[in-house]
Amino acid sequence: MKKIIKAGVIGATGYAGVELVRLLLNHPSVELARVSSVSFSGKEISDIYPGLRPSCNLILDDGHEQMLDECDVIFASLPHGHSQEIAEECVERGILFIDLGADFRLENESDYEIWYEGKFNNPELHREAVYGLCELNRADIKGAKLIANPGCYPTSIALALYPVLKNGLIDKKNIIIDSKSGITGAGRGLSLSTHYPESNEAFTAYKAGQHRHTPEIEQMLSKISKARVKVTFVPHLLPVNRGILSTIYCEMTADYATIRKAFEECYKNEPFVSVLKEGEYANIKNVKLTNCCHISLHRDSHTNKLIICSAIDNMVKGAAGQAVQNMNIIFRIDETEGLPLVAPAF
Amino acid sequence: MKKIIKAGVIGATGYAGVELVRLLLNHPSVELARVSSVSFSGKEISDIYPGLRPSCNLILDDGHEQMLDECDVIFASLPHGHSQEIAEECVERGILFIDLGADFRLENESDYEIWYEGKFNNPELHREAVYGLCELNRADIKGAKLIANPGCYPTSIALALYPVLKNGLIDKKNIIIDSKSGITGAGRGLSLSTHYPESNEAFTAYKAGQHRHTPEIEQMLSKISKARVKVTFVPHLLPVNRGILSTIYCEMTADYATIRKAFEECYKNEPFVSVLKEGEYANIKNVKLTNCCHISLHRDSHTNKLIICSAIDNMVKGAAGQAVQNMNIIFRIDETEGLPLVAPAF
Amino acid sequence: MKKIIKAGVIGATGYAGVELVRLLLNHPSVELARVSSVSFSGKEISDIYPGLRPSCNLILDDGHEQMLDECDVIFASLPHGHSQEIAEECVERGILFIDLGADFRLENESDYEIWYEGKFNNPELHREAVYGLCELNRADIKGAKLIANPGCYPTSIALALYPVLKNGLIDKKNIIIDSKSGITGAGRGLSLSTHYPESNEAFTAYKAGQHRHTPEIEQMLSKISKARVKVTFVPHLLPVNRGILSTIYCEMTADYATIRKAFEECYKNEPFVSVLKEGEYANIKNVKLTNCCHISLHRDSHTNKLIICSAIDNMVKGAAGQAVQNMNIIFRIDETEGLPLVAPAF
Amino acid sequence: MKKIIKAGVIGATGYAGVELVRLLLNHPSVELARVSSVSFSGKEISDIYPGLRPSCNLILDDGHEQMLDECDVIFASLPHGHSQEIAEECVERGILFIDLGADFRLENESDYEIWYEGKFNNPELHREAVYGLCELNRADIKGAKLIANPGCYPTSIALALYPVLKNGLIDKKNIIIDSKSGITGAGRGLSLSTHYPESNEAFTAYKAGQHRHTPEIEQMLSKISKARVKVTFVPHLLPVNRGILSTIYCEMTADYATIRKAFEECYKNEPFVSVLKEGEYANIKNVKLTNCCHISLHRDSHTNKLIICSAIDNMVKGAAGQAVQNMNIIFRIDETEGLPLVAPAF
Repeated sequence: MKKIIKAGVIGATGYAGVELVRLLLNHPSVELARVSSVSFSGKEISDIYPGLRPSCNLILDDGHEQMLDECDVIFASLPHGHSQEIAEECVERGILFIDLGADFRLENESDYEIWYEGKFNNPELHREAVYGLCELNRADIKGAKLIANPGCYPTSIALALYPVLKNGLIDKKNIIIDSKSGITGAGRGLSLSTHYPESNEAFTAYKAGQHRHTPEIEQMLSKISKARVKVTFVPHLLPVNRGILSTIYCEMTADYATIRKAFEECYKNEPFVSVLKEGEYANIKNVKLTNCCHISLHRDSHTNKLIICSAIDNMVKGAAGQAVQNMNIIFRIDETEGLPLVAPAF
Repeated sequence: MKKIIKAGVIGATGYAGVELVRLLLNHPSVELARVSSVSFSGKEISDIYPGLRPSCNLILDDGHEQMLDECDVIFASLPHGHSQEIAEECVERGILFIDLGADFRLENESDYEIWYEGKFNNPELHREAVYGLCELNRADIKGAKLIANPGCYPTSIALALYPVLKNGLIDKKNIIIDSKSGITGAGRGLSLSTHYPESNEAFTAYKAGQHRHTPEIEQMLSKISKARVKVTFVPHLLPVNRGILSTIYCEMTADYATIRKAFEECYKNEPFVSVLKEGEYANIKNVKLTNCCHISLHRDSHTNKLIICSAIDNMVKGAAGQAVQNMNIIFRIDETEGLPLVAPAF
Repeated sequence: MKKIIKAGVIGATGYAGVELVRLLLNHPSVELARVSSVSFSGKEISDIYPGLRPSCNLILDDGHEQMLDECDVIFASLPHGHSQEIAEECVERGILFIDLGADFRLENESDYEIWYEGKFNNPELHREAVYGLCELNRADIKGAKLIANPGCYPTSIALALYPVLKNGLIDKKNIIIDSKSGITGAGRGLSLSTHYPESNEAFTAYKAGQHRHTPEIEQMLSKISKARVKVTFVPHLLPVNRGILSTIYCEMTADYATIRKAFEECYKNEPFVSVLKEGEYANIKNVKLTNCCHISLHRDSHTNKLIICSAIDNMVKGAAGQAVQNMNIIFRIDETEGLPLVAPAF
Repeated sequence: MKKIIKAGVIGATGYAGVELVRLLLNHPSVELARVSSVSFSGKEISDIYPGLRPSCNLILDDGHEQMLDECDVIFASLPHGHSQEIAEECVERGILFIDLGADFRLENESDYEIWYEGKFNNPELHREAVYGLCELNRADIKGAKLIANPGCYPTSIALALYPVLKNGLIDKKNIIIDSKSGITGAGRGLSLSTHYPESNEAFTAYKAGQHRHTPEIEQMLSKISKARVKVTFVPHLLPVNRGILSTIYCEMTADYATIRKAFEECYKNEPFVSVLKEGEYANIKNVKLTNCCHISLHRDSHTNKLIICSAIDNMVKGAAGQAVQNMNIIFRIDETEGLPLVAPAF
């Protein structure tokens, strides 16, 4: 008989939260036991999201006491600053805590202060947290009690640059990242920029060189490179629901064939990462609703630049899916269990 | 150990075909053994649809001889007129044949001649075919060797009208059906009306009173009613990828409470059909990528009309999903196996 | 030299308001002198809508005193209940007042109470108001001091039914109207149903039989028919920015050729209304950004129903454009002046 | 009395062609006398584009003999290779010829051979042609008889880089251009990548480092810089109808304040170019349907990169609008005549 993991989701009515709910409901080794939401406590979650009907009739809890009593793993998708306390309690009680927010992603408290205007309540807890970019950190994740689930942009970028930075195949000083994200990236909170008539048939950059994911991106890339990496990072708002495409420009310090080989070598055993054939282009459509990352490589023979395109589903591999992947790793079940691999064609 | 059904898909690179591929790849009791395509034979299907990568590396066959040798069930998604011959061979050889095209849907050859300009090659074969609208025809489906999988519009409409027609709760003579379909309904073939700049930010009716699904709709509704039913049916092209919403207007011959009760009673044990609460509205978003049908009921107290809204995913419940549901019924496995029940929230 | 009309817009930062600004800036006989907005007073309107840059640098007023001192015509686009007082002052001072809100549309105070939960402050003022559906009411509009600019749905519907109701060519008792509106119809106010990820790739009916435009529709149709007309009216939310398509189902009481002739006759001299050829379908795309209405006629030979499709741009002919058309009529300038007639192809 | 310019459009049913038709119909100094189309000759253009109804009833010519007899200016929007002969005849007969295709854009025949696989029929004619990027080349345009109307990407890019390259404020050797174009950029011809279900909810780069506009971009930037400029240019296909946003990354060789000042100085008298305020972002929505270009400047203080965002409507300033602007300059009428300056808010 199959061992069942009991899971709870805090912040289950936000976009990352409800995506977790969807994935966990379909996960063969998980029982989704509890869901909570401050805004909608007491309601059936399927009244908020009728697409869950008829499968899920869970009532939204207000707090998370019962969740902590019942669950083996807790996923939290909360505004930053709100996870630290619950994380502490979970770690103390031996419950795996997977944080989809930003509270445990930055190792350096001063970075956290600058970008999130907050403090580390308990610096030791932060040292225990493992940054859950599964393909890069699998060994550390295995023993983790507290996972800082990566941001969506950092995931798409770190996977795209890992093979070349690890192997020193590009110039670390001149990396330009032009990312485009679907509108779910902005969450369920209402704003003028996500009001349909404002975002449909529109396209713009935002927070050029100022996005909060920048320190997280640089922290990860610096670790891979074992040297301080700085990047120019410009996100854009794309009029689609899901998906991130990052187009990355670098200077090659090795020949293109070596670089392509490094990518293929690096990801050949990864179930979720595909290095596309020469001439193919990564497209958000082809990873939609999956936990996959598609990477395509292009050489501008003209200027000798390397162009890397990386596509993920911002809500799956960029949030809820990677959180489940982390859980799978820690609970020693098949890493792909419960995680979609096939994108619908349309 | 699980019994594995070996399945083949003919016409696997069309939209219904590739949707079948996706569902069958995720089906726990099925091995997708063979896929064929006239247009792309010899290629890997994942080169045509990179969203299948890394899960599926099947090569597209040209013909279907090997498929017939190896498979227990064959799904065909072909232009009309092309299924009859293969169907015959399958039935002879005891292979279940599920036809997603229109060749076996109409019982009356003269209707087929008028609407599809074709003949019944083998009228006896047509008599053997079972119309696979699962919720309405389950008993007959169980013993079927040849399934005529229903059209997308007829599915959304028959499910919406079944409880009231079966119980005689509306006037059969004045039924108006205003349907709106996502653009995948037009298939993968290129046309000006499905060229992005022509269909985006556009909306129009088409084939008002002249759509080929009309005789199929009327055949089914007449059977339910045990009387000749005629409908006014106007389809529209909706600028979304997936989904059909049918808004149906009828004259009530019973009070509204009785009608609502008939719906709830009729579908209370159906895993894929949800009758929404009073005040809720069926939305294509809430059934997207699932095999579900959401039905909402509304009374215009003003004119005493009944308004029924019915939402399905045209490519799942309206095509590939219902085909799999038919297979599940015939092979006596859980009817929901391999069929998504939870719609992504976005 | 050209006579210049000085115009002011109250509520200039709402969607109908800014559409008025755009049209008036391009109107050869108008000087847009003043714009006001409670929410953004003191700001440049082009900071709120950068698409007005570089043409318009007007500062948004808080109140409208100066506007009344300077302007010949005032357009108001305000939440219902807020126009009555300003209207009164304008009429007293001889300033033409064109109300894009609902305050003066309903003749019957009890209807207004039921649907808008408000009272008529000054019933005499309401008697003076002229319902500004230009093609139907031109004679009355010419002498008007106060225009109740029609709602978007009522405009698309009244134009579609005018020829047949006026001439008694359909059964008045069984009219079914299935309308679909672009999302700008819901205005600039934020709501979950207009949040991009909720409305994109979604489609649903709303307020079936309960929309506030119902009494306005019936009032107009009853006037045309000189008899009480009741309709079944179901609006839907269409994932596009602009446009309304109304699909209307009626019983013919005359033959189809007579009906088609009545339409052609009725609109042959109307610059903004086109009766499409047999076999063509009205499409919101073909009237986008214009003040035009396209009407297509279809006969369901099968059930002998008449199907009328009517397409307008909800923000132009359904709001700001018709308001300008009313102004043109009253100021005796060419009715098409400043009003786009050509829709962009995409 | 106004002098009327008689204009003809060759290739009037392509997307750039019909956009010209729309603009010319609304141009106060132009009479659109003739339109031609190989594919639809003999038909009314409003049967192909019903959005032209009721304004335009022109019949599509097959050839262009009568057009040459009647017109003062001819616009041609043809596949490359097809304009050279007609251009020659126009120039001989003193008819202004404005070519929206690529035949006369490249000065260097060998570039044309490499990128377009064609030859210069008449090299002298090519020397007479003036590259019609109005803001940069106005002096030469004034006396031109033959205009090579710029490509859409080159227009968005040259306007964005002109102030810094002319003044030597950036490093010429490391310019990265990440452009995103609406789907009308691919024209009216059918293809799988522009089939609605393939392009909706999708996003991908294409022709990275290999797009035909690259030599045109470099030719123009080199002229401005008076030095050989090479760029890395990656276009992407954006799921919207209209608009190009180019995000350009450069190394500053002067301080940011100097750069901003250079932009403001350069464009302060240009009616169609707006340099946005610090903190604002160029958005394709705000230039839609206008001949305007919005440029926003951003400094990544972190890496000291300059980021320039430039937005145009690919079909107006990027094609038909700039063609009309060229005509206006040559005929010495107000440069903005007939060219929209105000973008609709939605």
